Amino acid sequence: MAHKFINEIEAGETIDDIYMVREPILRSTTRGDLYIAMFLSDRTGQLNGRMWQATETIYKALPKPGFIHIQGRSELYQNNLQIIINNISVIDATGVCVEDFLARTDKDTDKMFEEVKKTVGRIKNPQLKALVEEFLADTELMEKFCKAPGGTALHHNYLGGLLEHTLNMLKVAVAILPLYPDVQPDLVLAGIFLHDMGKTEELSYDMAFSYTDSGQLIGHIVKTALIVNQKADALRAKGTQIDQAVLDALEHIILSHHGEYEFGSPKLPATPEAFMVYYIDDLDAKVAQVRAAIDNEPGDSNWTAWKNALQTRLYRKRIE
Amino acid sequence: MAHKFINEIEAGETIDDIYMVREPILRSTTRGDLYIAMFLSDRTGQLNGRMWQATETIYKALPKPGFIHIQGRSELYQNNLQIIINNISVIDATGVCVEDFLARTDKDTDKMFEEVKKTVGRIKNPQLKALVEEFLADTELMEKFCKAPGGTALHHNYLGGLLEHTLNMLKVAVAILPLYPDVQPDLVLAGIFLHDMGKTEELSYDMAFSYTDSGQLIGHIVKTALIVNQKADALRAKGTQIDQAVLDALEHIILSHHGEYEFGSPKLPATPEAFMVYYIDDLDAKVAQVRAAIDNEPGDSNWTAWKNALQTRLYRKRIE
Amino acid sequence: MAHKFINEIEAGETIDDIYMVREPILRSTTRGDLYIAMFLSDRTGQLNGRMWQATETIYKALPKPGFIHIQGRSELYQNNLQIIINNISVIDATGVCVEDFLARTDKDTDKMFEEVKKTVGRIKNPQLKALVEEFLADTELMEKFCKAPGGTALHHNYLGGLLEHTLNMLKVAVAILPLYPDVQPDLVLAGIFLHDMGKTEELSYDMAFSYTDSGQLIGHIVKTALIVNQKADALRAKGTQIDQAVLDALEHIILSHHGEYEFGSPKLPATPEAFMVYYIDDLDAKVAQVRAAIDNEPGDSNWTAWKNALQTRLYRKRIE
Amino acid sequence: MAHKFINEIEAGETIDDIYMVREPILRSTTRGDLYIAMFLSDRTGQLNGRMWQATETIYKALPKPGFIHIQGRSELYQNNLQIIINNISVIDATGVCVEDFLARTDKDTDKMFEEVKKTVGRIKNPQLKALVEEFLADTELMEKFCKAPGGTALHHNYLGGLLEHTLNMLKVAVAILPLYPDVQPDLVLAGIFLHDMGKTEELSYDMAFSYTDSGQLIGHIVKTALIVNQKADALRAKGTQIDQAVLDALEHIILSHHGEYEFGSPKLPATPEAFMVYYIDDLDAKVAQVRAAIDNEPGDSNWTAWKNALQTRLYRKRIE
Amino acid sequence: MAHKFINEIEAGETIDDIYMVREPILRSTTRGDLYIAMFLSDRTGQLNGRMWQATETIYKALPKPGFIHIQGRSELYQNNLQIIINNISVIDATGVCVEDFLARTDKDTDKMFEEVKKTVGRIKNPQLKALVEEFLADTELMEKFCKAPGGTALHHNYLGGLLEHTLNMLKVAVAILPLYPDVQPDLVLAGIFLHDMGKTEELSYDMAFSYTDSGQLIGHIVKTALIVNQKADALRAKGTQIDQAVLDALEHIILSHHGEYEFGSPKLPATPEAFMVYYIDDLDAKVAQVRAAIDNEPGDSNWTAWKNALQTRLYRKRIE
Amino acid sequence: MAHKFINEIEAGETIDDIYMVREPILRSTTRGDLYIAMFLSDRTGQLNGRMWQATETIYKALPKPGFIHIQGRSELYQNNLQIIINNISVIDATGVCVEDFLARTDKDTDKMFEEVKKTVGRIKNPQLKALVEEFLADTELMEKFCKAPGGTALHHNYLGGLLEHTLNMLKVAVAILPLYPDVQPDLVLAGIFLHDMGKTEELSYDMAFSYTDSGQLIGHIVKTALIVNQKADALRAKGTQIDQAVLDALEHIILSHHGEYEFGSPKLPATPEAFMVYYIDDLDAKVAQVRAAIDNEPGDSNWTAWKNALQTRLYRKRIE
Repeated sequence: MAHKFINEIEAGETIDDIYMVREPILRSTTRGDLYIAMFLSDRTGQLNGRMWQATETIYKALPKPGFIHIQGRSELYQNNLQIIINNISVIDATGVCVEDFLARTDKDTDKMFEEVKKTVGRIKNPQLKALVEEFLADTELMEKFCKAPGGTALHHNYLGGLLEHTLNMLKVAVAILPLYPDVQPDLVLAGIFLHDMGKTEELSYDMAFSYTDSGQLIGHIVKTALIVNQKADALRAKGTQIDQAVLDALEHIILSHHGEYEFGSPKLPATPEAFMVYYIDDLDAKVAQVRAAIDNEPGDSNWTAWKNALQTRLYRKRIE
Repeated sequence: MAHKFINEIEAGETIDDIYMVREPILRSTTRGDLYIAMFLSDRTGQLNGRMWQATETIYKALPKPGFIHIQGRSELYQNNLQIIINNISVIDATGVCVEDFLARTDKDTDKMFEEVKKTVGRIKNPQLKALVEEFLADTELMEKFCKAPGGTALHHNYLGGLLEHTLNMLKVAVAILPLYPDVQPDLVLAGIFLHDMGKTEELSYDMAFSYTDSGQLIGHIVKTALIVNQKADALRAKGTQIDQAVLDALEHIILSHHGEYEFGSPKLPATPEAFMVYYIDDLDAKVAQVRAAIDNEPGDSNWTAWKNALQTRLYRKRIE
Repeated sequence: MAHKFINEIEAGETIDDIYMVREPILRSTTRGDLYIAMFLSDRTGQLNGRMWQATETIYKALPKPGFIHIQGRSELYQNNLQIIINNISVIDATGVCVEDFLARTDKDTDKMFEEVKKTVGRIKNPQLKALVEEFLADTELMEKFCKAPGGTALHHNYLGGLLEHTLNMLKVAVAILPLYPDVQPDLVLAGIFLHDMGKTEELSYDMAFSYTDSGQLIGHIVKTALIVNQKADALRAKGTQIDQAVLDALEHIILSHHGEYEFGSPKLPATPEAFMVYYIDDLDAKVAQVRAAIDNEPGDSNWTAWKNALQTRLYRKRIE
Repeated sequence: MAHKFINEIEAGETIDDIYMVREPILRSTTRGDLYIAMFLSDRTGQLNGRMWQATETIYKALPKPGFIHIQGRSELYQNNLQIIINNISVIDATGVCVEDFLARTDKDTDKMFEEVKKTVGRIKNPQLKALVEEFLADTELMEKFCKAPGGTALHHNYLGGLLEHTLNMLKVAVAILPLYPDVQPDLVLAGIFLHDMGKTEELSYDMAFSYTDSGQLIGHIVKTALIVNQKADALRAKGTQIDQAVLDALEHIILSHHGEYEFGSPKLPATPEAFMVYYIDDLDAKVAQVRAAIDNEPGDSNWTAWKNALQTRLYRKRIE
Repeated sequence: MAHKFINEIEAGETIDDIYMVREPILRSTTRGDLYIAMFLSDRTGQLNGRMWQATETIYKALPKPGFIHIQGRSELYQNNLQIIINNISVIDATGVCVEDFLARTDKDTDKMFEEVKKTVGRIKNPQLKALVEEFLADTELMEKFCKAPGGTALHHNYLGGLLEHTLNMLKVAVAILPLYPDVQPDLVLAGIFLHDMGKTEELSYDMAFSYTDSGQLIGHIVKTALIVNQKADALRAKGTQIDQAVLDALEHIILSHHGEYEFGSPKLPATPEAFMVYYIDDLDAKVAQVRAAIDNEPGDSNWTAWKNALQTRLYRKRIE
Repeated sequence: MAHKFINEIEAGETIDDIYMVREPILRSTTRGDLYIAMFLSDRTGQLNGRMWQATETIYKALPKPGFIHIQGRSELYQNNLQIIINNISVIDATGVCVEDFLARTDKDTDKMFEEVKKTVGRIKNPQLKALVEEFLADTELMEKFCKAPGGTALHHNYLGGLLEHTLNMLKVAVAILPLYPDVQPDLVLAGIFLHDMGKTEELSYDMAFSYTDSGQLIGHIVKTALIVNQKADALRAKGTQIDQAVLDALEHIILSHHGEYEFGSPKLPATPEAFMVYYIDDLDAKVAQVRAAIDNEPGDSNWTAWKNALQTRLYRKRIE
């Protein structure tokens, strides 16, 4: 049976479906009866849920957060929809279609990953080629690479977003590299493929998009540098030559790709390749961010609300 | 007779050629004799010139700056070459091949301008099309557009540099616009074509690359906006419809294309098109700037000197 | 009949008057009945309005925003006043006394405009004189100049505020110019008269104070430069001489009058006159802003709340 | 006998006059003979001086810096004037007309001080009046106030500059206070009179303009606050009432008059009076600084050299 | 009878105790009956209080803020505890144990002050010694020094916090001074003892922690400098020698101890001693601030909420 | 035979010793004869060297830079010492006592390293202990650690400087950790020991202090993180447990120890331990930097020249 999405529920319906439960709280009414308040959500939105005549046993069994199957009824309360729950059963996350609960790219991740592989297949420098292939051969990492979001908030913040963003950057690079014959294409392509690889470890995205402890303490820029270093060490242990100069030039692109110290880059771009990857990354991220902000703005005003990260409101009207 | 370039002169040669003279000064020796010290230059470099036994009449006749035909001899003085001048005659600037004295693009400006015209010929929006054609029809302005440098110091600082930079940006846009289907291509192409048009008035480039008074007081960003407005007024006077909304969207791209207030943009980008033009401009400028800094660095160290505008030294070694 | 102002309404009164309606929303009660929630306002404040037993037809007829004549009753709900509406009729904005709904200067705009004209009448430079007179002769623009607010939020944010601010700046200039004999008075007076003229197009102030699309995309600084340029073109078309050097010096004052890049000036002041206009503008604006913040602070604490634009709280106690 | 000013000396003259000597160094020629190199200066400029056949005794007797009477001859050396000294006698500074050696205001300091006294005589608040009079009664301090420069480098950097700057600010205040009826005039006038009083201790100006140790460690802003506090303590000891609230409001003006933390103000302006003094100070200082930079620029270019403190070059051409 | 702390109250209890009352408001119900809403607090938290059937007389008698003895009952309202008040009597603040209402250090202030005295007793320089003893002899000031908080918000924000922070800094200095033999220990110890002395005047802490008017207008940095100056004047009046150089070196430490202009230091550190005091202050403050933020974070997440003053979230998990 | 140090040479001496040669240039005199100009240096200073009657063969054989044995004579030329070289023989760097040519710590490195080992021997956490011991067991790395400078310019810029700085920080930590019982000492000690370990790879210090290519592209902060990661990987490969949480907490200290993004830290401190290491590092570095600037200032003025890195001049006079 198809999932009943949160944004499709109207007042007065019978509800019998799985939702993600977050922040459940056990409270007592003024008469001393216990009830549970909670948020119920899927990828389309979130509602308040109330289970009256609750017990501490039910409360303790609830995942925080996690998935529950509920039976109940929707109703309007102070002009907001809420769900009155009669029955709760906890659901194992493994049996749940996570895409119903987390936003995901509307593109085909398999196809996108094939395109990524094809594009980095253009790399001719044997050491960069070996390094990239070492990554492609790490199927566990590649699975994460295909699933991870591109970020938690501003752009590509959905499952598959990292892959989509990386592929788009590769396409931009392939399109413009012929216009800059002095720029070394292998470094640019390898740099783009790897630039955000550490986000697979920086972000968690099973229940919601958030930062891991390790991600917050280290950051994806250094995480990426560490992984690249480990792969190079592994290759060297297998007898493959990886010159320090090649590794340094590649890691420099990764470490400088935010372009400014205040955005967490420990190094500023110092090679044409580092500048190119920085601009392609920023261009693709900002256009996606502007696009998303314009699309997600409620109402039909010509302007979005103030966007602090861009220090402006955005103009939504098209002239063409 | 071919011009003897400054960087070809060796000690002990006889000199009989035209050079640009700058900053001539009349001085007296300790014995009270008058002489003139000056700089002599062409597009390949600059040397000290000395005319002994000079007179105030000769000094007053010298252009400051301008072109002179000199006869004399090269010699080493304190390990530097200088030119001892026996005879000076002032030359009219109109008879001089300015390309010998000012650096110019090594590409064919006619072909580049044809490519620009062809590319902006893709614009379909009738109002933007009319506006662009109004510019193309202004032959005096287009001549300047083909001749002007892209800047005085950091990138594309040679005759034809504005054209070369604009064309390269158009090519980048054509290459990547298909990857961003929501971005309005006509606005991007028209925005790129016009974005630095005010540099034709901001910069002077007959004798050397410098800023005009008007350029320094107003700046090329606002200069460009003023010219676009005048062309739109002219079209409206002829009965062509130019909606204020179209003009505003185009001028917004121009006014925000430096991306940050501190770089002289009075507005921050607020449309996807403005972001795209900003990034393409910055990418093309910075890659050219890095390339030029690497190529012009004397010696064969792996690193250039510190580049203040980029807050780093640049790495010159290639790995591919 | 005099308008019953929002800040005069008490609980339990019968209401039969015109108010501005903003953000009406059609909602359904838990029993399924439709009602309309809205804000009702005039220049003295704003209340919630509720029309029970509403229909979609009534809702659709409402302006968003605009003026309506309502009949109903005031009541307390959760300690806040609200208005229960029995009947609504939509009112044409042209028949409404806009001063009841938008704050306006408490000075006489006709007299102020006369003073402005008299003050700029001191200008002797024939080109600046011609330019200023070209503006004074544009009655449509001058009407807007007399009506526009000086801003939307921080200072002179009321009808006539632009005029009041400009006049006060002119008075300051007349008072201090004799103390600075090297500063060219005509440039200062013309610069002040014109410095914010673009606000007539940047701001809309029929229903409320907000930015026009064009205002947000271009900004009043460049708007002003564009208008000045158009007037100069018009004069030249009539045969009046306007030297580029004069126009540049004037436009430089306009473009640099915010004094810093981060406040949207594309140029920094580079003439004594530009510095003087910048300081007079900032002095008059900041004193008005501080005055307004102190006057509008509720309660009688010695300090206002934190003022982010000034990075301080303001001290309200007087010692004299 | 009138002093022969440095900027009047030509090659080949006999010199017999007093000059300031700075940075004398005893050196030996390649043949082992001792000579003394030094700078000789007055308020119009500086030259190199050389005394051949010097002795260590002569060297040790030289003040560093101080005044010497020299006899010798001017000559050109490598196109620069220098003075060959035959005889040196050290001069007591007390017998020297310091105005020949340090630049001074071209206005009459007695008259200016009278004007200052008359202007602060307008103050009616009895406590501020008592405080100002306590300062005026401190003749030693007032002598310094009349003699001190306004700064060491950028504006009013000549003897009497502090007085001239303070008086000009008072005149501006008197001229514009009627336009701001809510601003408390007594606080503004007292604030201006005292705002830079600490410069009398921050700067030394007997031989040249420089900072005292105390001035560098404490700064004139806090110096001023300390002096005002001491005067208030002295008044209180005499039984005059000085309310803490009045003193605080006055000291706040002093502490915030640089307007921004980065210019050394430990507090930002938080009263209308503090804003007014800040703007009047900045206006008067910047116009003087721009004026001086334009006047002192050598050559007749339309632009000065780059002025780092203003982040621009300055435009020198007048249109009126 | 022991005070019933706010954080110990549960729903349904009878309340008969003293609390601090803040922001009482007189309101009328929809039926026109008057009631008073207020906040009731002690050092453990704050609750809403409601007195139904109130009169204007009761309202007017309430301190704003101050202490009241209330009789009433606790109840849950919309899942929050509130207190329904039947009877109110106003309490004189002098009879109240202020430590119940304001957080205070959990250390013994007498012992801490003894340790401070012992530590500054190490000072050997006779002038610094005299100055410190002049402070220690001012019992009124020392009482405030022992009672004042170290700040209002971020660190040591409790009674005795200033003393605790100062003592801890002295201990750090004593521990590390032997490692820096070139640093003058007397200046460091005197500088630490006095560095925040002005907070005794900048902050008020009878009812709650807030800034005095004088504190906001002048700031504790300059306040401290003013007090030190007064003590030096007093000593000099008694015939004790205090060299200006010693006083300047000490005041420089005070004026520069925030280390950066933007944190309100009018001078940047220019001596080894000033650098040392700055770092010890910042180290002790930041570690306390981080510790408090981690301890006060509700819940058991590994991370605190975003801390704006530190521009990061803080990691709470320990590894040892 | 003892080395004749540069700062001991006087005019007219016979020279027969080894010096470092840098930047040799082959030039021709105005008569066409070839000569070589070069700099000769040791750790006490640098002089110009001239070899007349040179040949291209001699020039080509010179190391650039490297060591040469010269025979010649010292003389004064334009008041500067220079060395006239008669004979040159190139010396193999391995036979040279590098301490004569590069500044080194005046402390005993063996003893310092013993102290470091003893101090980190206090670490009890088995994982941190294992990690630290893995570093101590890497004798090649430890040799570099004992020899590397602490930086190239501002502080501890001499051989052994990294060790001296690290040891001093450890001593500070040991002294103050008892005052901060909540701070985890093992993390602080391990963090300090490792914090700059990457400088062993970032800097080269065989001939002079400079950055390696790898150092400039990656930076010592990330270099250190990479080395720590490799050591952890090596331990894990040997079966030693290193929890990711422990490694992350340690690497976080390393990545944030510059305290601000603009100083190249990719993360801001987010744990008490990270704050403590940051402050101890900055305190030790700045006090050393101030000390060195004061000691190295020529002359006996009370103030040093302007120090750009500290944005102030430094006060040299002591009061104790």
